[in-house]
Amino acid sequence: MKNEMILDGQDGTSGFFIIPKSKIYSKKSKFQQIEIFYHDYFGKILRIDGCFQTSELDECLYHEPLVQFALFSHPNPKKVLIIGGGDGGSLKEVVKHKDIEKIVMVEIDKEVVNISKRFLKNINKNAFKDKRVKIIYQDGIKYLEENKEKYDVIILDLTDPSGESLRLYTKEFYEKVKKKLNKKGVVSLHTESYLFYPKVFGRIISTLKSVFNYVSPHGNDVPLYGGTISFALCSKDINFTNIKEFEVVRRLDRKKIKDLKYFTPSLFLASLELPKYVNEVIEQKHKLITLDNPLKEGKGGNWEEKW
Amino acid sequence: MKNEMILDGQDGTSGFFIIPKSKIYSKKSKFQQIEIFYHDYFGKILRIDGCFQTSELDECLYHEPLVQFALFSHPNPKKVLIIGGGDGGSLKEVVKHKDIEKIVMVEIDKEVVNISKRFLKNINKNAFKDKRVKIIYQDGIKYLEENKEKYDVIILDLTDPSGESLRLYTKEFYEKVKKKLNKKGVVSLHTESYLFYPKVFGRIISTLKSVFNYVSPHGNDVPLYGGTISFALCSKDINFTNIKEFEVVRRLDRKKIKDLKYFTPSLFLASLELPKYVNEVIEQKHKLITLDNPLKEGKGGNWEEKW
Repeated sequence: MKNEMILDGQDGTSGFFIIPKSKIYSKKSKFQQIEIFYHDYFGKILRIDGCFQTSELDECLYHEPLVQFALFSHPNPKKVLIIGGGDGGSLKEVVKHKDIEKIVMVEIDKEVVNISKRFLKNINKNAFKDKRVKIIYQDGIKYLEENKEKYDVIILDLTDPSGESLRLYTKEFYEKVKKKLNKKGVVSLHTESYLFYPKVFGRIISTLKSVFNYVSPHGNDVPLYGGTISFALCSKDINFTNIKEFEVVRRLDRKKIKDLKYFTPSLFLASLELPKYVNEVIEQKHKLITLDNPLKEGKGGNWEEKW
Repeated sequence: MKNEMILDGQDGTSGFFIIPKSKIYSKKSKFQQIEIFYHDYFGKILRIDGCFQTSELDECLYHEPLVQFALFSHPNPKKVLIIGGGDGGSLKEVVKHKDIEKIVMVEIDKEVVNISKRFLKNINKNAFKDKRVKIIYQDGIKYLEENKEKYDVIILDLTDPSGESLRLYTKEFYEKVKKKLNKKGVVSLHTESYLFYPKVFGRIISTLKSVFNYVSPHGNDVPLYGGTISFALCSKDINFTNIKEFEVVRRLDRKKIKDLKYFTPSLFLASLELPKYVNEVIEQKHKLITLDNPLKEGKGGNWEEKW
């Protein structure tokens, strides 16, 4: 590929660059700086506090594995909770399932939703308007503490572990989430890049395994996030590696969902097979992430330690 | 991920950036500018004519799918040809198979091999010294035209389609390659990014399908190449989607290869399942690439045309 560049400097970083055609909008909310850019190939792009969140081009590479893998793991989900996801991309994936009866989205920043309603219709397809959807503007942890409702599928569509969101990447938080699951309930979340932050990934997976009986990581390349990122499916009752392809095909047939860009039943199950080095990271012993032992920010592993 | 950056400018590009710690070496050969950089996380990096070729960190994400997927598709390969691959990364993968008897590598630029022998030992593991290896410094097309020898596996480890290498991405070239295959022979090559250049990818796959009975594309994220890239396995006789996992497991057991970072039998077969949009690109009609209708350089598709 030709789109690669050496920049000046000595600090040894690397990642994704983009030269947008224009900045469409910018606003500082109570919580964060929200910007919308336009790029010829990526389309509209949402950036929050200097971190890319989603784009029209590659949003399906994130939202479909995050949401559809979870919804198709469950035999018959009726109630879904999304924590975060203010751009509406995850919501759009959930409303594709006409047999789901209730969808609650808990987002801390109303401004992200408002801006996404206005600029990111190609990403959320106006899913906010669906009659089954209830949006609650509240801190996710507070919502879990104050509400007794249980769900079949819970999607954690959070920002990366950093600052305020660090407490959403702890054993204590995952325990709170588990309590809100119905029988056969499934939790889906993203779990950092196993290539660039193998130790962070390893600690998150170990922590999830200390809470849930079944944890199945999977990965995908989302260019806007700088390349390989990972996700995990978690459950007390569903062993994801035992799901048969014909079951997923039947669920898809029954639901008659056509507007998918990334998901197929066979791709979903194939995605649960991981590269050898990732299996090795998972098998290593990692310190659990707790409020007392949180993730340390922005370091990542040295690659010699990784392989 | 935090390693993302907006650069100034209006030209709508995007891609991979890196800030290397140092430039270790630079030399202009008869054919091209060859540079070696060092980066804390990627390790040593080879760049040719301004395009990244390989790094210590992520070379396995390219060389293992390119080479091991092909070698493990064949029931019992004895003779292997590599065209290109001067850094020795592909060669290193082939010499891991102790039951292979003869390995010929045809590389046009002796300087790339010399520099790789000196600086990239972590990538080639001194595979050039293996007694089964014969290195021929010659143009790949000329070699195919002048030699009658046939091979079980042929690896095309070429630079991206551009300039001189455009004639290696044509039906005429693939026909020449096919003639050098033994029965059950397998060809492996990379086929551009289906995310960033879906039309280029589509044309390459269509052209391969016009030459080989069986063509199985697969993808992977190689950060140094700017993200998602693709590969294809091709054969007259081997239907890759019919390969059973137990067969690959048996081959791996028999060969006793331990030093793999990426490859597992189940990951290999899972990789042949593609995202829905990629299946759709493959099913579209694409103009075949011939010497009269070569690829047009550096354009890529507009994403609205793609999905």
